This record gives sequence, structure tokens and C-alpha cells, in this order.
Amino acid sequence: MKAKKVRYVWIPVVIALIAVPVGFYYVNWSKGGAGAGLYSRDWLPDAIFAYWNPDDFYESVQSVAGTFKGEECVACHEAVTPGIVKDWRKSRHSQAQKTVYCTDCHGNDHQKLHLPTPEICGGCHTTQHVDFRDEKRYGFPSHSLAMERALDAKHFVDKPKAEVTACLQCHSIATKCDSCHTRHRFNAAEARRPEACITCHSGPPHPDDETYFASAHGQIYLAEGDDWDWSKPLRKGNYKAPTCAYCHMDEGKHQVAEKSIWKFGIREVNPLTSGNEVKRDKWVKLCSDCHEPDWARQKLSEMDAERKRAWRKLYAAEKILKNLRDEKQLHPMAKQRPPYPGDSEHTFMQWERIGFFEGQASAFYNVSPIERDYFEMWYFDNLGAYKGAAHGDPAFVRKGHAAMDAALENIRRNANALRTLDEAEKAAGIRPEAEAFWKQGEYTDYNREHN
Amino acid sequence: MKAKKVRYVWIPVVIALIAVPVGFYYVNWSKGGAGAGLYSRDWLPDAIFAYWNPDDFYESVQSVAGTFKGEECVACHEAVTPGIVKDWRKSRHSQAQKTVYCTDCHGNDHQKLHLPTPEICGGCHTTQHVDFRDEKRYGFPSHSLAMERALDAKHFVDKPKAEVTACLQCHSIATKCDSCHTRHRFNAAEARRPEACITCHSGPPHPDDETYFASAHGQIYLAEGDDWDWSKPLRKGNYKAPTCAYCHMDEGKHQVAEKSIWKFGIREVNPLTSGNEVKRDKWVKLCSDCHEPDWARQKLSEMDAERKRAWRKLYAAEKILKNLRDEKQLHPMAKQRPPYPGDSEHTFMQWERIGFFEGQASAFYNVSPIERDYFEMWYFDNLGAYKGAAHGDPAFVRKGHAAMDAALENIRRNANALRTLDEAEKAAGIRPEAEAFWKQGEYTDYNREHN
Amino acid sequence: MKAKKVRYVWIPVVIALIAVPVGFYYVNWSKGGAGAGLYSRDWLPDAIFAYWNPDDFYESVQSVAGTFKGEECVACHEAVTPGIVKDWRKSRHSQAQKTVYCTDCHGNDHQKLHLPTPEICGGCHTTQHVDFRDEKRYGFPSHSLAMERALDAKHFVDKPKAEVTACLQCHSIATKCDSCHTRHRFNAAEARRPEACITCHSGPPHPDDETYFASAHGQIYLAEGDDWDWSKPLRKGNYKAPTCAYCHMDEGKHQVAEKSIWKFGIREVNPLTSGNEVKRDKWVKLCSDCHEPDWARQKLSEMDAERKRAWRKLYAAEKILKNLRDEKQLHPMAKQRPPYPGDSEHTFMQWERIGFFEGQASAFYNVSPIERDYFEMWYFDNLGAYKGAAHGDPAFVRKGHAAMDAALENIRRNANALRTLDEAEKAAGIRPEAEAFWKQGEYTDYNREHN
Repeated sequence: MKAKKVRYVWIPVVIALIAVPVGFYYVNWSKGGAGAGLYSRDWLPDAIFAYWNPDDFYESVQSVAGTFKGEECVACHEAVTPGIVKDWRKSRHSQAQKTVYCTDCHGNDHQKLHLPTPEICGGCHTTQHVDFRDEKRYGFPSHSLAMERALDAKHFVDKPKAEVTACLQCHSIATKCDSCHTRHRFNAAEARRPEACITCHSGPPHPDDETYFASAHGQIYLAEGDDWDWSKPLRKGNYKAPTCAYCHMDEGKHQVAEKSIWKFGIREVNPLTSGNEVKRDKWVKLCSDCHEPDWARQKLSEMDAERKRAWRKLYAAEKILKNLRDEKQLHPMAKQRPPYPGDSEHTFMQWERIGFFEGQASAFYNVSPIERDYFEMWYFDNLGAYKGAAHGDPAFVRKGHAAMDAALENIRRNANALRTLDEAEKAAGIRPEAEAFWKQGEYTDYNREHN
Repeated sequence: MKAKKVRYVWIPVVIALIAVPVGFYYVNWSKGGAGAGLYSRDWLPDAIFAYWNPDDFYESVQSVAGTFKGEECVACHEAVTPGIVKDWRKSRHSQAQKTVYCTDCHGNDHQKLHLPTPEICGGCHTTQHVDFRDEKRYGFPSHSLAMERALDAKHFVDKPKAEVTACLQCHSIATKCDSCHTRHRFNAAEARRPEACITCHSGPPHPDDETYFASAHGQIYLAEGDDWDWSKPLRKGNYKAPTCAYCHMDEGKHQVAEKSIWKFGIREVNPLTSGNEVKRDKWVKLCSDCHEPDWARQKLSEMDAERKRAWRKLYAAEKILKNLRDEKQLHPMAKQRPPYPGDSEHTFMQWERIGFFEGQASAFYNVSPIERDYFEMWYFDNLGAYKGAAHGDPAFVRKGHAAMDAALENIRRNANALRTLDEAEKAAGIRPEAEAFWKQGEYTDYNREHN
Repeated sequence: MKAKKVRYVWIPVVIALIAVPVGFYYVNWSKGGAGAGLYSRDWLPDAIFAYWNPDDFYESVQSVAGTFKGEECVACHEAVTPGIVKDWRKSRHSQAQKTVYCTDCHGNDHQKLHLPTPEICGGCHTTQHVDFRDEKRYGFPSHSLAMERALDAKHFVDKPKAEVTACLQCHSIATKCDSCHTRHRFNAAEARRPEACITCHSGPPHPDDETYFASAHGQIYLAEGDDWDWSKPLRKGNYKAPTCAYCHMDEGKHQVAEKSIWKFGIREVNPLTSGNEVKRDKWVKLCSDCHEPDWARQKLSEMDAERKRAWRKLYAAEKILKNLRDEKQLHPMAKQRPPYPGDSEHTFMQWERIGFFEGQASAFYNVSPIERDYFEMWYFDNLGAYKGAAHGDPAFVRKGHAAMDAALENIRRNANALRTLDEAEKAAGIRPEAEAFWKQGEYTDYNREHN
């Protein structure tokens, strides 16, 4: 008996020995298309992608031929693009003991020029690059994973390209360094100022711009920041008020994930796990550069309290939607509309995804109106309130919660209306023509053909 | 007969003699709880209140013992908190003939330190403090009453603490001076710049930030303000364009209420009373620092015209709601929902409060959706339009009026829908389950237990 | 036969000979009222118009009499209005070889002073003035036509004056130069900075402010712009990042219309006509001051793609509304509500105007709720998305498209609700009292009487 049992052990081992390499092979194959990422075979890059994901897509201009030395590049570009040459002259690159020339980053063959990737910059700036890559350990959201997670997201393929390209402009933070250190000055001083971050960190789902500048910190920066000495490192005593980088990249560390407790407000977390207590202590230590430790602890507690309230509201809305789903009162239901991004009409268990854990995040499109309302409550109002609490902008907290209150009321009202309407329609024998109406929509089918 | 009548006179006198001290005693008693203000016995302060209302709640850190001289404070804090010591070194406090040390404002016993209240600052800065307190004469809104009116508001106790703490951050303007003159530089130059005000004066109900900066004044400030000499007093000819303080605190007067005509746009006022004409003349005189007096008068008339239009719209909405109330078409009605803040279920005359004079201001919560819509129309759109008119930002006027137009339409639409729904429900014999549904809500009951 | 035919030719010639001068006479007559523009006989100017349209309405103050020399003006105004004298002293006007005095622009008779029009400034600044007037060739929108097109718009007369005055503040760009070059410094450096433009170019229908500052260009300007040398002309290599004027008024040309392809996003255009290809090449050349030409072409293509998507959404909404119109489901219909601006109740073909080509632009007021929803989708969300695409602010593109998605959903939902409601009302024999209800509204009738 014993020997017989042992023999069966081989079955899963053999399956694994086949499945694992097949899996690897499949993933590799799926990444081998003309696009990039897991769905690379399902889309073609727009030409602008060359600038945002240069490693995969940039192709050098062919109008000039020949190989050149650094001095020659400068001599010619002084006339062609004087602005960037001026920037370079002011940079440490041009003033270093051993001058860093155009060729060091772009290559010297003018028909095979490349745009510098983080790896190229990291050739010299090792510490920064190692820190930057280290963010990956903390998962998404993080700068380091911004591009690949965008490309690997199911909705990337099905979403209209005109809207996707807008996303990638910011997600290119993962694939080039000039999102923060702009060409061709590349100085640290620039990246210490909040504007460097805010090019991307603004707008509805992450109003860091609005909330930081509305805070006491931001207002002091706005009034006086132009007079500060930005060549100084981000360290206790060097700045009257903190900027994004002062708090999130203290001591210049190019890794912003290791202090993150609430993870952008995307999902509820327990802020009091032992892991999060370690992060909390790091924050308190940092705030104590200027404030009493007690003050810092209280501010963080306030933030926890804000989050707790926000999730009460979100869960209340979620429950209403889940009840509607049980009662089949969402119109159109999942099967009456184009499939979710990445799914097909024949996907097993094609049902309405409500809330973060069921995949709400990919439900921007093709959902019923009330699901969209909830999505916006979660994605805009909730995340806005979180940022307000995190950055010390009480007006944004109030605005976000007022909007959540209104959205919840509205969802309640519309849920009742849906039920009443259904009863009325049943009584009158009316059947809404939802199916054809929605399935003819432009999403998914349209986009698969045109992306 | 006459003697008999005289004897009756004693009855009200005796009642008054008993009632007045009893009243005083009761108010005193009600203020004697662990919180603060009229409802001090109904809530406990969050620890963060210590920093916003230090006189009532701050308790010194106990980690360091001993009494110290000013020089000793500086010597030690140079290492512990170098930033604030640097700020202090740049301040007039450290450069005065008789140095103003940490101990002068915080005390010298490290286990009994206090945070400076306006009274402490007023010990030296008498004129400013007297002006500041003088605002109280003009009632609320005013800086000087910001904290006590917040704490004495009925809804303060019943509102979720996580949202109340956000309010108090700004209302602490009444209880400490560093809302405008930030630590530990405390200079007048900083407070002359708009950012000092805007830390609080931004966001939906008072978009001073958005409207000032969008005005011609604000744009000139943004483009050129960094080059102005902010050490100069707020006086004719010293600044190319005015800031918040230039107009509202002209000549540096720490009292912004005495020129206020429209009182934040909260209620309709007659702008042409003789009292308001006096204020108007003060404005015209002030604007004439740069503009023709006629121009100033016209701008003020425009503002009156804007207000008049706004109130037409608000009253139209109010009338719709009052009609719905008469028809018992507000769902839920006041008796079907948790009581108003400060009321109980047994409050006499517990009815729907519509409009400012009935107490709309405290009706953020626990109201029917259509009442909430009106509240937001009044509190956000209306107040925003007012600020646009007051600060010379026509886009905000248009935005506010467009939003009011839309809200009014929406209220009309929903009022009709409520009536239609009611008829349909009556015809079908349906009774909405409003009562239990709403009374189980989290507000009031929940908060009373958890605040 | 031939002779007979020739004789008939005289009929249209005679009609034309009568009609053309009559037409001219009528237009002239209609412009001869107390207001200004085509409807000048239907309205009276508010006093503030004197400052915004000085040529038509400004009347000098009468409090001071006499004629003065420039030196005398300065001597007296040094005391009365020291700020503007200081500004003038810093200006090129006061430092020119031949000093430009107050009298050169305002006249010397203090009871007949005028405010300088563009023609007066153009007396010396000829090139700028000629360029500025040249914009007229390109139609509206343009700076040069801003005032007359506003005054000639049908809704100008019927719109409440309190809201019209807000419009004119910005439209006065056509009638005075100090919208960009503020008094009395009037320097070019000021107008090179974005704030000069943004006083007007902000807010819902043209969020140039929000989108430029959120772009990489804007963020670099915000962080570092105060240190740039603004006395330099707007030319390749002089600025690290571009401002509004750098791109739209390159080389200082006072004519921003000749590169405009998409015309503010107001209507769909074919971006690939040969005329637009010429404009596109101008853009690519300009962007190439700093970027690769390929990059520039791609960014412009992205913008085309964004526009194409926007119009799909707008046309989808328009179609729903046109169907509702055919089904007579718009409540109130055009004949049940006050007439469109400029129309009367007896206007021939008084019907619902849906979409740009039917005159949507003048349909702010007196329309049914669902038409208003479409108007806002078109005017706010669509135009916002356009500006986001044009200025490189992807967050605004996403925000605009999310808002359009939501609006389209909402319009769909409400269109169905209108049909259902109609069936229910018919079944129950209910007739909504729309007619009286709406016709008693304040617009049009009210305004005609009170404007």
C-alpha cells in the first residue's frame, strides 16, 4: 500500500514539470508581440509610445548619418536646439571633472541614437537606481512598476487608445528619469521642489497637487519657497517647510514605498498591524524634524479615523449594489453588455464585479449607470478625501466626504427607483430593449478591431 | 386695588431673580465638562485638539524635566529641532534689543510648557490683539469667534469626530496666532502675502483662493509678487497689486469685520442701509488707492446685482421645498429620520428646517435627498458665486450661477418625480419602508455613543 | 426672346439696388441706440461698461477742471495715486528718449479725459496693433472680435445683466490693451508670463490655466520661472520651458489665430485639410525649438485622436436628443417655454435647437433639463478635454472624458425615464402643467423689461 501511494506522487510532479515551463513559455510568447506586456499581441503601439517606453519602441531619426564625438554634438546642436545645450551647460554633467557628453547617454551613431533608460542613468547614479528598483518589492502602486502594470492591465487593450495614451505619459516614470529631472539640466534641486512630482500627481484620483498646496506646508512653500536654497539635501533643518520629496524621499532616498501605510486609499487596510506600526514610527520620527512627536501621532490617528469613516460609506454603497445584483436589478446586467476588458462573451462566471476585491478597478467601462456612480464615489471622492487627510488639507476631506454622502444618497435613491421602475414595467408588461442597445456599444468589440 | 396690583409686580421680579442666576449657573455648568463650549459634557476632545485649542487642552510633554533659561533652550534645540531655531534666529524676536526667548512665550518649566495663546502674544503686540478681539462686536463669521462658535454649534457634538477635527484646524485661528504668522519666524511680511490667508480660505464654501488668484489682482501677484518688498506696510503706493490683507486689513489693522457688507454671502442683506453705505464708502476709498472712485462704485454695484440674482434662485428652490413640506412629500420627513443635531426624538416642533432662517445651516446631515441638494446649492454654488463677484473673478460667478441654474432645475425635476412617485405608490398600494431604514442610520445615535 | 430674358435681369438688380442700402441703413440704425452693437436699441449699458468698452461709453470725471502738461499730471498724481505713478516711472514710457506722458494717452483736458483704446496705443506700437487687428480675418473666436461678437450675440440682450457684465470683463480684450499689459508699467515682460493670459483663460469652457500649469511645461515654469530673464524675446533658446505666449505668439507676433486648427474645440473640424496641414507644419517647427519633430507630430496626432473620440460621444448624445424631439418627449418643448434669445413667441420655425449647427451655443437658458445636460457636456466637459489634450495635461483629458461618459449615460437614463414617465402619465390620464409653469419663468420676458 505504501509503495502504491508513493507512486501516485509522480502524477502532480509530472504535471508540474510540464505545466511550469509551458506557463513560462506561454507568458514569454504573449509578451513577444508588436506591443508590449502580457497582451502585446493584441495591440500596436502609437508612435508616441516611443518617447514613453523608449527601450521597447524608440527608433532613432535617420535624417543625419555618421558617428560623432561629444564636442561635435554640442557644436552642431548649439544652433539646432540651443535651449537644451544651454540647459546642459548649466548641468553637473558639463561641469564634472570628466565631462558627461551627449554621447555618453545617447550613443554616438546618429542613426542609432537611444533615449536614456533608468538603467543607463543608473550606470553612474547607482544608489538612486537601486533604491528606485527596490520599490518593486512593495508591489503596486509604485513608480518602478508603473509602466509594466499599466501594460499588463486587462483594460489596457480594450480601452480606447486615445485615452490610454494619456495614462502612459505619467506611467513612463518607470521607464525614464526625466519625468522628475527634466532635460537637459537634470538637477536634483529641481526634483526637490513639489512641481517635479505634481506634473503627474494631480487630478481626481490623486489630488496631491491640490491637497499639498492647500496645506500649511504648501502655502509656506508657495509664499517663500523661491528664496530657499534648493541645493541643500532634504534633511532636518534645511527647509522651513517640507515638500513632497522632503517627506516621501527623506534624505534623498529614491524609494517612496517603504513608509506607505494606506496605499493610496485604494483598499481598506488595518493601519495598526505590527508592520504598519514600524512605518508609523518612521513617519513620527520624520515629522519630529519640526513638530512634537505627539502632534505627529495625532495627525496620523486623524487620518486613520478619516479612512474608517470613508470605508463605512463605501461599504454601505457596495452593499446596496450587491443587493441589486442579487435581485437582478442592475440594468444592463453583465450578460447584457459587452464583456469586461480581457473577457469574452463566453468567459465562465461573467458576472457583475462590485468593489475592489471583485475587480472594480477595471470596471471603468461597459457597466450599468449605478455601478459607474459607485466607481466614481470610490475612485474620485474617496481617494480625494484620503489625500486631503494625508496632506493636511481639511477642506478636501470635507469636500470628499460631502461628495461621498451625496453619492451614497444618490445610489440609495436610484436603487429604489430601479426597483420601482421594474415593478411598474412588470405591471405594464414592458420589457426594456437593453440587450441590443448596449451590445452595439463601441467598447470592446469596436476597440478590439481598431486598437 | 392699586396696592394689590403693585404686589403682583413682585412675581416676575422674583422669577427673574431666580431664573437669571439659574440660567448663568446652568450655562456655566454645561461648559464645565471634559470637552469645551456649551456642550462640553457631551463630548471628549481628540488629542489633536490640544494643538488647536491649547488653552483648554494642551498638556506639556513630560519627557524632559527641569527649568531652563532661554539660552539653554536654544542650545539644546539647535540639535533637536534645528529648523525652528533657524526660523527664530531670523525673527525680530531674536534680534530685538531685549531678546524674546522661547521661555517668554512657552514658560521655563519643561514639564509645564504651554503653547502661546493670542493673549500671550497680545502681551507685547497690544494693538493687534485689541483689534483682533474687536471683531467679536460684529458677530459671526469672524476670526475671533471662530473657535467658540464652532464648539457651541449644535451639530458639533453629533457630527462624526473624523469630520469635526478637520473643521477645527482652521477655526483655531481664534485660539493661536501661528495660523497666519507661522512658527518660529512670525514675521509680518509672511502674513501680508495671500498664502497666509489661503491655508484656510479655500475650498467650496469660501473659495477665496481660487477667486483671488483668478482675478487680475491675483495674476499680477502670481507673476511678480516674489519681487515685491514685503517688509513695507500695507499702504497706498507700496504694492503694485493688492493681496487679501491689503484690502481686508488695510494699514495693518487686525480686524477684518468692519468693512464686511455681505457677510460671506450666507444670507441676503440689504446692501443699501445707511450702515452699509458707510462700509461702502470705506471700500471706495480703499479701491481709490489705484482706481477711479466711479470704477469702485460700479464694481460694488455689480456685486449687489449678482447677489440679487443669486437670492432669486435660492428663494425659488426654497419655495419648492416648502411646498413639498406642506404636501408631505419630503422622504423621509423629519419625524421619520434621526433628530436634528442637538434635538431628541421628543423635541417639540421637530419639523423640516428649510432655508437659513429656519436653521438650514445645521442641516448637513440626516435630511432627505432634495433638502441636501438645496443645501449644497446654497452652501457651495451660491457662496462660490459670491466670492467670484467679490474678488473680481467673473468665471467663478458664471460657474456658480450655472451650477445654481442646474441645481434649481434638478430640484424642480425631482420635486415632480416625488409627486409622481407618490401617486404611483398610492395607486399600487406600496408604502416605502423609510422609517426603519433611516432611523437605523449611523448619525446622531451612533455618534452620541461614540464621540 | 433673348431681349425679353435680358429685360428680366433688371428685376433682381433693382431689388438688390434697393435691398442692399436698406440693409446697410437698417444695420446702422440698429447700432445707433444707447447700448452698442446690433441690439443697441434693446439695452442700456451698466456704468461699469465705461471701463470695458471705453470708446463707446467712457465719460471723463468732472471733478477737476483745466488742461495740464504731462509733468503737472505726474506732480499731482504722485500724491493722489502714488502706485500708478511708480509703475509709470518704471515703464519704458517714462524712460524713453521722448518721455511718453499721461497726456499722450489720456488727453490733457481733465474734463475730457479718455481711456486709451487699441487705436491710441497703436499710434506708436504699429506692428502689434496691425497684427492684433489681423486676427479678425480668422473669424471668431479671436481676441480682436471678442467685444463686438459678444455685443452682437442674440442672447446678450436677453441674458440677465448681472451675468453679462461678468462676460464683458474678459471680452474687453478687444477694446483696451491693459488686459495683458497692466497699468501703468505696460511692459512686455509681464505679458510674456502665463499669468497675463490666465486672468481670462481659466474656468470651465477654457481651462487653459488648469491645463497649462498641470503640464510639464507649466510645472517647470512654476518651479523656476521666477529666475528667468523675461526681458528676452520669445525665441528659440531663450526660455527653458514655453509659456502661453511663447507658443501662441511666437516671436512676439500679436496674432494668435493663424496657427489655430481645432478652434477651441467648439465644433468638429477636419484636422487634415491642406489648410490645416500648413498650420500643423508651423506647430511642428515651433515645437522643434526643443523637441524632435517626430515627437511634435505624434503629440498633434494624439490631440486629433482625442477630438475624434470626443465627437463620437457628443454625436451619440445629440442623436438621443434629436430622437426625443421627434417623439415630442422634451419637456417643456420649445413652444411651451419662453422663446430663444432674440426670438419672439411668433418666430417662424421656433423649434428645439440641438447641437452646434442648430444654434446650441445660444441655448444656455430656457431649455428642458436634458438639453441643458447636453449643453454642459458639450460646453464644459468636451472643451475641457480638448484643452487638456492641447496643453499636455493627460489628467484633464481623462477627467473630461469621464465626465462625458457619465453625462452620456445620464442622458440615456433620463431619455428612457422621460419615455417611461410619458407612458405612465398617458396611462393614468395625467397632463403635466408645463406650459404655464415655464412661461412664467423670469427669463426673456422678465429680462426684456428690466435690462
